[in-house]
Amino acid sequence: MEVVEVFHMNEGNGDTSYANNSVGQKNVILRTKPTTEEAITDLYNSLCPETISIADLGCSSGPNTFLVVFDIIRAVEKLRKITGTHSPEYVVHLSDLPSNDFNSIFRSLPRYVEDFKKEMGDGFGDCFFAGVGGSFYGRLFPSKTLHFVHSSNSLHWLSQIPKGLEENKGNIRIATSSPPSVIKAYYEQFERDFLTFLKARSEELVTGGRMVLYFSGRKSEIHNPIHDVLNIWTLLAKCLKDLVTKGLVEEEKLNSFNIPIYAASLKEVKMVVEKEGSFSINVLEGFTYDFSESVKDGKAITNSVRALVESLVVNHFGRGVIDQVFNKYEEMIGECMAEFVKEEFINIVSLTKI
Amino acid sequence: MEVVEVFHMNEGNGDTSYANNSVGQKNVILRTKPTTEEAITDLYNSLCPETISIADLGCSSGPNTFLVVFDIIRAVEKLRKITGTHSPEYVVHLSDLPSNDFNSIFRSLPRYVEDFKKEMGDGFGDCFFAGVGGSFYGRLFPSKTLHFVHSSNSLHWLSQIPKGLEENKGNIRIATSSPPSVIKAYYEQFERDFLTFLKARSEELVTGGRMVLYFSGRKSEIHNPIHDVLNIWTLLAKCLKDLVTKGLVEEEKLNSFNIPIYAASLKEVKMVVEKEGSFSINVLEGFTYDFSESVKDGKAITNSVRALVESLVVNHFGRGVIDQVFNKYEEMIGECMAEFVKEEFINIVSLTKI
Repeated sequence: MEVVEVFHMNEGNGDTSYANNSVGQKNVILRTKPTTEEAITDLYNSLCPETISIADLGCSSGPNTFLVVFDIIRAVEKLRKITGTHSPEYVVHLSDLPSNDFNSIFRSLPRYVEDFKKEMGDGFGDCFFAGVGGSFYGRLFPSKTLHFVHSSNSLHWLSQIPKGLEENKGNIRIATSSPPSVIKAYYEQFERDFLTFLKARSEELVTGGRMVLYFSGRKSEIHNPIHDVLNIWTLLAKCLKDLVTKGLVEEEKLNSFNIPIYAASLKEVKMVVEKEGSFSINVLEGFTYDFSESVKDGKAITNSVRALVESLVVNHFGRGVIDQVFNKYEEMIGECMAEFVKEEFINIVSLTKI
Repeated sequence: MEVVEVFHMNEGNGDTSYANNSVGQKNVILRTKPTTEEAITDLYNSLCPETISIADLGCSSGPNTFLVVFDIIRAVEKLRKITGTHSPEYVVHLSDLPSNDFNSIFRSLPRYVEDFKKEMGDGFGDCFFAGVGGSFYGRLFPSKTLHFVHSSNSLHWLSQIPKGLEENKGNIRIATSSPPSVIKAYYEQFERDFLTFLKARSEELVTGGRMVLYFSGRKSEIHNPIHDVLNIWTLLAKCLKDLVTKGLVEEEKLNSFNIPIYAASLKEVKMVVEKEGSFSINVLEGFTYDFSESVKDGKAITNSVRALVESLVVNHFGRGVIDQVFNKYEEMIGECMAEFVKEEFINIVSLTKI
């Protein structure tokens, strides 16, 4: 499967849309705001560009799309007012895979921008938006044109399902029962992908340009410590197994299904950044995020997971089973809410292009 | 009505979609190709930029979207091969109103680009695409960043329905029975809009940057000469009147309906370009185009008109009447095919930013 071609957050505004199931991602963005502000402040103070070119990679569509970008611009405006300089021109590139719902971005943009301009008041510089459809595991922008790159909740998604997962039967990503070969295959895919990502951005960013990345990671070097046995992914695997038991899905089909997601440790992130060599590290830290703060009940968790992975499940198993999978998910989560791991570890990485 | 908010070519791939009813526009693009090639050749020879930034304004979606852009790039590649220089980076901005079908552009882009790269062969520079949703009657891009602007079949669309059309009862745009006040109102809207367009582009283009524009015009200074009494618009007005006669639409509703379209003469275009003052004129000419070369029968003409104006008709009269309007259109065009004017006059304008 080409992840690039099929993967996208659920479209539209329905119950299982990403737009209506992204409060968790929003809270992560809010938690990481100080790091973003620090990076854009440093950038503006050191380069003071007449035109600031910003890219948000993995922008998706929905209320979160403009959240970070507006925060970045707010930080610059605050600064330039203090220093008494005139407002720069802003160029904002919103990028995601080609199957992302760009129509919804462009249609909601005028309203958001109008409100934002009012908030910014007189003297606010022109602000230009462009959509860029493509994988960030490849070049997206011309050479040396970007000042600031931001990516939230995206870089744990791999460019493809790793090769060599034959031994991962019954699991749909790295799980406690996954053999070392599976962990190795996943890690190597992550390393290749993250190297490619850094290489592409290093060509696109100006010298001194900044990059702030947040994505799912893991707290310890060990994969899936024993207390992680029941998380959003193991529960999804259970639901799919239930379909096999009921004869609705062939076992072979389930065995060949894997989610292209990898939760890197901070040590692994550091290693890859240093291996690539174009960036210095300003911040490398993580925090544990309790997503039950934002998704309160089983239904909400179910819809959030569905908004994320429906396109992948449908692509592999067909549209026919999707409601059954997530009805089961909602039913099972109700039964195991107490043991269910509602924590996620988030990596925060702030880099400067050397 | 805000044209910016509701106006778009018909989406998708159905019988009445713009994608399947744009052969006429394609033929115009082919006819104007030499002018475009001459302009991009001049530009490349004089500026020879490392990165060429191209914008197509009113790109719509469908097979025509990439046609011109690829021709522009082909011309540069031919040239740089002759001179033995390496291929520049290409940045292509595809722009249209926010309600344009950008999803369809982004989803078809990878396939088109892959084929095009194969055609261009080894040594072809990187090519980056961005979508920009907004009205070209306003700024769309940062200052002094564009090298080449192209717009085909778009600039006859006004930014809004002119004020002061109360005396245009029974007509839906300038017609033989329109009084001078209506012609004046339409012309003044065109002048304001075209001035705004030129002003915005003059800020976005680098000095020496080029702009090639094709749009519907008129051959003589007189509006609607007597042989033009039965054209695509008067027939649409007849169909709408038929709905009034049948009691399906209130007469007042029809009287307040006008299409925001103006066919400027070459003299008028020249006057506005000179009034704005940022551009020198390289080419200003026109040609008569027989659209029955590409849309052969009544059904095809009906679908073409529908693909263009459905969004405006639905916005004014509601979705309920749309099939009736165009069923009637097809019926009536069958009866009057002989007298029906199948010619359109196209203005070609090639400009250089001073």
